[in-house]
This record gives sequence, C-alpha cells and structure tokens, in this order.
Amino acid sequence: MKRSEIIQLLDGTHPKRSDAIAWAMNGLIILSAIVIALETEPGLPAELQLWLYRFEVLLLAIFAVEYALRIWASERRLKYIFSFWGVIDLLSFLPAVVLLTPEWQAVRAFRLLRLVRLFKLFRSLHALERLVAAFRDVREELILFVIIAALMLYVSAVGIYIFEHEAQPETFRSIPMSLWWAVATFTTVGYGDMYPITPGGRLFTSAILFIGLGIVAVPAAIVTTALLEAETNIGKKGKRKKKKQKKSEVIEPSETGTSKGE
Amino acid sequence: MKRSEIIQLLDGTHPKRSDAIAWAMNGLIILSAIVIALETEPGLPAELQLWLYRFEVLLLAIFAVEYALRIWASERRLKYIFSFWGVIDLLSFLPAVVLLTPEWQAVRAFRLLRLVRLFKLFRSLHALERLVAAFRDVREELILFVIIAALMLYVSAVGIYIFEHEAQPETFRSIPMSLWWAVATFTTVGYGDMYPITPGGRLFTSAILFIGLGIVAVPAAIVTTALLEAETNIGKKGKRKKKKQKKSEVIEPSETGTSKGE
Amino acid sequence: MKRSEIIQLLDGTHPKRSDAIAWAMNGLIILSAIVIALETEPGLPAELQLWLYRFEVLLLAIFAVEYALRIWASERRLKYIFSFWGVIDLLSFLPAVVLLTPEWQAVRAFRLLRLVRLFKLFRSLHALERLVAAFRDVREELILFVIIAALMLYVSAVGIYIFEHEAQPETFRSIPMSLWWAVATFTTVGYGDMYPITPGGRLFTSAILFIGLGIVAVPAAIVTTALLEAETNIGKKGKRKKKKQKKSEVIEPSETGTSKGE
Amino acid sequence: MKRSEIIQLLDGTHPKRSDAIAWAMNGLIILSAIVIALETEPGLPAELQLWLYRFEVLLLAIFAVEYALRIWASERRLKYIFSFWGVIDLLSFLPAVVLLTPEWQAVRAFRLLRLVRLFKLFRSLHALERLVAAFRDVREELILFVIIAALMLYVSAVGIYIFEHEAQPETFRSIPMSLWWAVATFTTVGYGDMYPITPGGRLFTSAILFIGLGIVAVPAAIVTTALLEAETNIGKKGKRKKKKQKKSEVIEPSETGTSKGE
Repeated sequence: MKRSEIIQLLDGTHPKRSDAIAWAMNGLIILSAIVIALETEPGLPAELQLWLYRFEVLLLAIFAVEYALRIWASERRLKYIFSFWGVIDLLSFLPAVVLLTPEWQAVRAFRLLRLVRLFKLFRSLHALERLVAAFRDVREELILFVIIAALMLYVSAVGIYIFEHEAQPETFRSIPMSLWWAVATFTTVGYGDMYPITPGGRLFTSAILFIGLGIVAVPAAIVTTALLEAETNIGKKGKRKKKKQKKSEVIEPSETGTSKGE
Repeated sequence: MKRSEIIQLLDGTHPKRSDAIAWAMNGLIILSAIVIALETEPGLPAELQLWLYRFEVLLLAIFAVEYALRIWASERRLKYIFSFWGVIDLLSFLPAVVLLTPEWQAVRAFRLLRLVRLFKLFRSLHALERLVAAFRDVREELILFVIIAALMLYVSAVGIYIFEHEAQPETFRSIPMSLWWAVATFTTVGYGDMYPITPGGRLFTSAILFIGLGIVAVPAAIVTTALLEAETNIGKKGKRKKKKQKKSEVIEPSETGTSKGE
Repeated sequence: MKRSEIIQLLDGTHPKRSDAIAWAMNGLIILSAIVIALETEPGLPAELQLWLYRFEVLLLAIFAVEYALRIWASERRLKYIFSFWGVIDLLSFLPAVVLLTPEWQAVRAFRLLRLVRLFKLFRSLHALERLVAAFRDVREELILFVIIAALMLYVSAVGIYIFEHEAQPETFRSIPMSLWWAVATFTTVGYGDMYPITPGGRLFTSAILFIGLGIVAVPAAIVTTALLEAETNIGKKGKRKKKKQKKSEVIEPSETGTSKGE
Repeated sequence: MKRSEIIQLLDGTHPKRSDAIAWAMNGLIILSAIVIALETEPGLPAELQLWLYRFEVLLLAIFAVEYALRIWASERRLKYIFSFWGVIDLLSFLPAVVLLTPEWQAVRAFRLLRLVRLFKLFRSLHALERLVAAFRDVREELILFVIIAALMLYVSAVGIYIFEHEAQPETFRSIPMSLWWAVATFTTVGYGDMYPITPGGRLFTSAILFIGLGIVAVPAAIVTTALLEAETNIGKKGKRKKKKQKKSEVIEPSETGTSKGE
C-alpha cells in the first residue's frame, strides 16, 4: 500500500477501498460532540464521568495517530502542517491533552476548544462544502437584506421604546433592550420576557408586525431557498431526478422550454 | 357471497358494493382515539366513565369479530395471521381485553397500547399511504438537512452556553439544556422557559437567528413541499385539475411544454 | 328613479351613479364593529359611552331604513325577505333593538349578535366573495391535510403525555390537555403555559418537531397559496399584469407555452 | 472642481471619483443610530457618556457642514432648501443643537428626532429606493389582504372573548384586549401574556388557528415575495444571473419561452 493511499483512506476518497474509515472517523467526531455536551451536565454519576473521560483519552489517541499518519504520508509535510487542515487536525486533539493533567475539571472553556473537531466533518461530508458554496452564492443579497431587516428592527425598537418606556421603565429601559424585543417578536420567537402593555404600544406592534414579518423573513427565505436549490443541484441520483426526466420527455417532441418554478 | 368479498367489504375495495363498512370502521377508530384521550382526563363523572367503558367493550367486540372474519375469509390463514396487518388487527383489540379485568384502572400505559388501532386507518385511507410514499421520496435529503440543522443547533447551543452559563447557571446549566433552548428558539416556538439575559448572549442570538431560522426551516419546507406535491399527484379529479387542462389547451396548438412551478 | 335602481345604489352596482352609498354603508359596518369592540371595554367614561350609544341608535335606524327600502324596492318581496340576504339585513339591526330597552347593559351575548352585520360586507366586497370561492376550490385538500395534521398532533400529544405526565401531573394531566400543548407547539405559537421538562420529553419534542412543523404547516400553506392565486386571478389591472404581458410578448414569436411559477 | 461635483461627491454619483465620501457619510449615520440607541441605556459610565457626547457634537458639525456645502453648491438654492432632501438634511443636525445646551439630558423625545438622519441612507442606498418601489407595486393587494387578515383577527377575538371572558375576566377583559391576543397568536409570536384556559376556548383556538395562520401569513408572504423579486430585478451581475443564462441557452435552439417561477 502506498503512502498516498493512507490519506485517501482517511479522506474516504480511495478509488477502490470502501470509505468505512472516513465514516468511522466522522462518527467518532459526532460522538465526541455529544460527549463534550454531556460532560457539561452537572451532577453526572462518577462512574459515567470516568467512562466519558476514558472515551476522551481514546479519541485523543485516535486523532493524534491520525495526525501523525497524515504527516508521515504527506509528500510535502511542512505544507500540510501549516495548511488549514493541518492546523485543524492538530487542534482536534491538542486541547484534549489538558485532560491528562490532574486539573482538567477546572478549565472549562479550554475543553470546549475540542469542538474544533467539528470542522473535520467538512473534509468528507462534501454536501456541507457545497452548502457553504450555496451560501457564498447568495452572500450579497443576504447581507443586503440582513441590513434592511436590521433597519426595520431598529425603527420598531425606537417606536416601542417611545410607547412603552414610561409604562415599563424596567423592561423597555433603553433602545438596545427594545431591540432585543424586536428581534424576539419579528422572528415570532416571542419568549414573553418583554411585551407591550399600553394600548399605543400594542397598536404600534400590530400595525408594524404584518409588514415587518415579511421583511424579517427575507434572509431566512433566501437561506432556505439556496439550501433547497443546492441540494437539488448536488444531483441525487434517486427517484426525484428520474421523475423530472420523465416530465421533460413528455415535452421533448416539440423541444420546448421548461422552467423551474422557484 | 364469496369469502373474499368479506375482506373486500372490510377494506372498502369491493368493486360493486359501497365502501360504507370500511368508512364506518375508520370512524370507529377515530372515535376510539378520542375516547382513549378523554379517559385520561382526571375527575370525569362516574356516569360518563361508565359509558366510555361500554363503548370500549363494544369496540373490543367489533375489532375481535373483524379479526375472526378476516381469518375465516383468508385463503391462506397463517400467512395473514403473521402478516403485518394480521398483527395490527390482533393488537387493535388484544390490549383492550385488560379492560374486562377488575384492575383496569391501574395499567395506564397498557391501555394506551390500544392506539395501535390508528394503524388500521392506513388500510383504507390510501391518501395516507401515498403521503408515506412522498416521505420516502425525500427521505435522503430530509436526513441530510436534519443533520445540518442539528449541527447548527449544536453550535448555537455551545455559543449560548458560553455566553449565558455564568449569568444563569441554573437555566443554562449545561450544553444539553442549551440545546433545548436552541430547539425552542430556532423553530420559533419560544416557550419562554429559557432566554438569554446578557448583552453578549442576546447579540449572539440575534446574529445567528436570522441565518439559523433559514437552516432549521429546511426540513419542514421539504416535508411541506413533498406533501403538497404528493397531494397534487394523487390526482383529485376536481376543479383544480380541470383548470389546468384548460390552461394547457390554450397552449396546445403549438404543442409546447408547460411546467409546474413548485 | 326606478325602484330597482335603489337596490343598485345600495349594492353599488348601479351602471351610472357612483358606488359611494355602498362604500359608506361598508364604512359604517366596519365602524360599527370597532364600536361594538370598544363597548366591551370596562370602565369607559360615561360621556364616551353615551356617544357610542347614540352612534348605535343611529346605525340601528340606518340599517332599519335600508331594510325597509330593500323590501319596498324588491319586485318579489317575500322572496327577498326569506332569502339569505333578507335575513342578514333583518338581523343586522334587530338585535340592536334591545339597546332601546333600559336593561341593555345586561344582555352582553345578545349585543354581540349585532356582528351579523359583518356579513353585509360580502355583498359589495366582491374580493371577499372570490376569496371564499378560492377556499371552496381547495376545500377537499384542506380537509385531508387538516385530518393528517390532527393525526400528527394526536400522536405527539400521546407521546408527550407518556413522557411528561409523571413529572408534571398538573400541567400534562391528560391527553386532551397535551393536545393543547401540541397545537401551541407545532403552530410555533408557544405560549409557554405548557412545556416538557424531562430529558425524554424534550428529546421527543425535538425529534418530532422538525418533521411535524412541516406537516402542520401544510393547511396554512394551502390557504396562503390559494389566496395569493385568487388575488392574481381577480385581475388587478395594475403594473403586475402589464409586466406579465410584456414577458409573454417576448415569447410569443414562437408561440410557446408559458408557465406560472407557483 | 466645479460646484456641482461637490454634490456628486456627497451623493456618490461622481462619474470618476470614488463614492468613498458617500459611504463614509452612510457609515456615520449608522454609527449615529447605534450611538443614539446606546445613549438611552441608563447607568452608562460617565466617561463613555462624555465620548458619546463628543461624537454627537462631531456629527452635528459634519452634517451642518454638509448642509452648508449643499446649499452653496446648489444652482437653485431656495429650491433645494425647501425640497424634501433639503428639509431632511436640515433636520438631521438641527435637533442635535439642543445637545449644546446644558439641559440636554432632559429632552429625551427631542433627542430621538435626530433619527431623521436615517432617511439620508435612502439617498445613496439605491437598493432601498427600489425596495420601496417594490412595496408600491404590491400596495393594493397588501391593503386588501391586511383588511382580510384584520377581519379574521376580529372574528377570532370576538370568539375567544365569548369563550374566555367569564373564566378570565381580567385577561380577556374586552374585545380590544382579545384582539391583542389574536395578533400575538396568529402571527405565532405567542408571548404567553394571554392564552385560553377553558376547553371551549382551546378548541376554538385550535380549530381557527390552522386556517387563520394561512390568512394572516398572506401579507407577510406578499412582502417577502415582492422583496425577493425586486432584488432579482435589481440585477446582480453575479453568479446567479449567469446560471440562468446558461439554462436559457440550453433551451435556445428552439427559441422557446422560459418563465420565471415566482
């Protein structure tokens, strides 16, 4: 087995062998994310904590070995070490080394650094990469409409501040606080920690809400549409595609245009 | 009347007779679901409880008779008994037998098992079947986007945990708890049991919310679209279809293609 | 002026005269709805109450006169009196007669009957009529998907009841109560009066929410789409239509089909 | 440099010079909006307050100078002074003059008047202008559907008032109060300050919610669609357009029509 094949195996891009190793690594990363989340839960039984700790040490070893293998198998080692993926591979086990020291319970923030591992998912989940590309495609319009939504929220916040500040000086105590209300309201999350109680404030909210919902929904709509489109373009070879082919066959005789709705 | 006709009558697929029996059975199942729900309400008047009990015994008898009839009418009886529908038909009255024992008030969970009856709706509500098929069609993209949404929620949960844990150590006490916040927030349910109170946490939420809403909305959008499409394909022979035919007639002279916008 | 013209004036369908009278009547109806709403507000100043009362008596007179005029101007009077609109016209002032009696403060529910007047809006707001027609068009699929959504909510309610009943026996005290939680959650209203607190209940909610949101959203999506389509068909002669004509002109040379995206 | 070029520089429309000055002015306006919001926060450290004050005086000077420059550079000075933009330019620094007086802490509402500056963003953010145009395009249907949504909310409010008034006379104390519930519920904001507690009120809400969500969502859907369309028409020369060109090339051979789905 050649050196380069090792990297192909790790990346799941080997032309002949299965991509089982790459998938196993991805599984470990996701499992690791779950473990890191669980560890933050206070009052875990000591025994479970021990097992989580052992799992973490195991992962530390696996990712360290992967790093060593990738360096050894690289043709241009220094280039890999200082590349984006090289740094990610290093960081995916380095913060965990602190686990081996006796004070590991103390450094909470440092332990969350292990989540850098999640980036490794991008290497073999090509779907994720293309989705990032989908974001890049709509980046400009996304920025434009986030700015417009922000302006709308700002104006709503100033309005509700004028109406409610006197009645609820603690809750709507400032415009930045009112902005938080605007975000929670126009995204329809509506936590219930802040809401207008004066007739004026309620009328203002009702009046601006119907239109505002439409404006604030635009960024999310752009993202959803871009993701759905990207997914279609990724080209699942499944049933959906076949269906579309059948449809176009019906039209083919006259070779006329077909259009994609939205 | 032939034996096989009995099954056709029960299934509502008899070529000549009406499907009234099948619909009556479906009505009984839905009524049964309502009764099972009502029974869990504490403090029901004793008389109503008695009537609900009697209805349940009646249903028990009806489903038992149906089961017996289906066995008797089957050509290959053992095959039916061990088939999926055979087991469902058995389970749709077997858990109710416990009702006849004096201790029936005690075994709550067991009584809910009667809800297996709901599966029987699938036998004659062919719409449901096709909708399940619609789900199968989009299964892969659904899984993909649920994973992506889960990743987004995970990252949001870690972020809010970092911002809010110190200020609200009880509410945002761990990352799994923060995940619950992320689910309630990004689906815009917003119960109000957990929300950020620090400026940093609120800024973080506002910043990630606009984009995040779009990502988390994708699975639901896929389901909604698939269901709406499936419904259209089911082919209601009503007004809608006729309209579309008219439209296509307008274009027919040149035999050109028409496309369905989403 | 002929008798029939009086009805045309009232309906706003007179070929030559303006429809100002019909619009004034509609304005009065909407004003009346606002007044009826205001009247329910407790603690109104006595003077305002007096003015609202006078306005109501005025309206009573106007609608009574309208009724008399319509009877007098009808060619077939009995037919009008017993027609749908005849009954509506009668009911639009009859419940208000109670206002003239000294006990009118007492019979609250009776006073709300005056809202039957709102039906009168349908007579000249032809947009409303066509929207009702739009509903009729999608009635069957609406019923189908409301049933499916209801099934989904039922299953969710049973699930959350199993998970949460023990931990919160008061809040999730029965399946009907849990259904209310399911409605508030899956429509993303999320009042915050009921929410799961056990890890199992939260996992269950998170798991079923992403798919469930898509199912529960279908009826609303059908309504929104039908209304938007109906509006487009109503045929505003404004800019939008012209734009579309221009587009179709571009395609006309080859006489090919055009399709309407959603 | 000619006089007219000064205006072109300020507007960012100079054919040769960069539009850096116009962008800097826009940046100052947005910065100013953030500062005005921050100023309302009580308990700011005295030193920060001083810096915000200094920034405001600086802005005051800059906008005053801009105003003077625009008057000086105008060919028809009086026309500019009394034009819309002339008044906006004046108001963008005039309310800030009060800052120079010792009592500036007192006149809160007056200080918010400085937000008139936000209008200046429209001068060079041509995207905003076109979006306003997009709104104008759908104005009529927007008004129609806001009225229909309002009717639906009114009917829901009357219904919930009938069901809940007796059980919660304080919360659902009047129809106007119930309207506020209807707005918060049908937009799915769901603050949780008002919700039905009677079985009847909950059944009513559940029944009307599924359809009502669809009706209330129409205005927002119209706005979102109009904004997305406007953005597409603004004509980003980016990748999206190229993609569409490619698609149309595929169809070109037969010169058939293509249509844009929503």
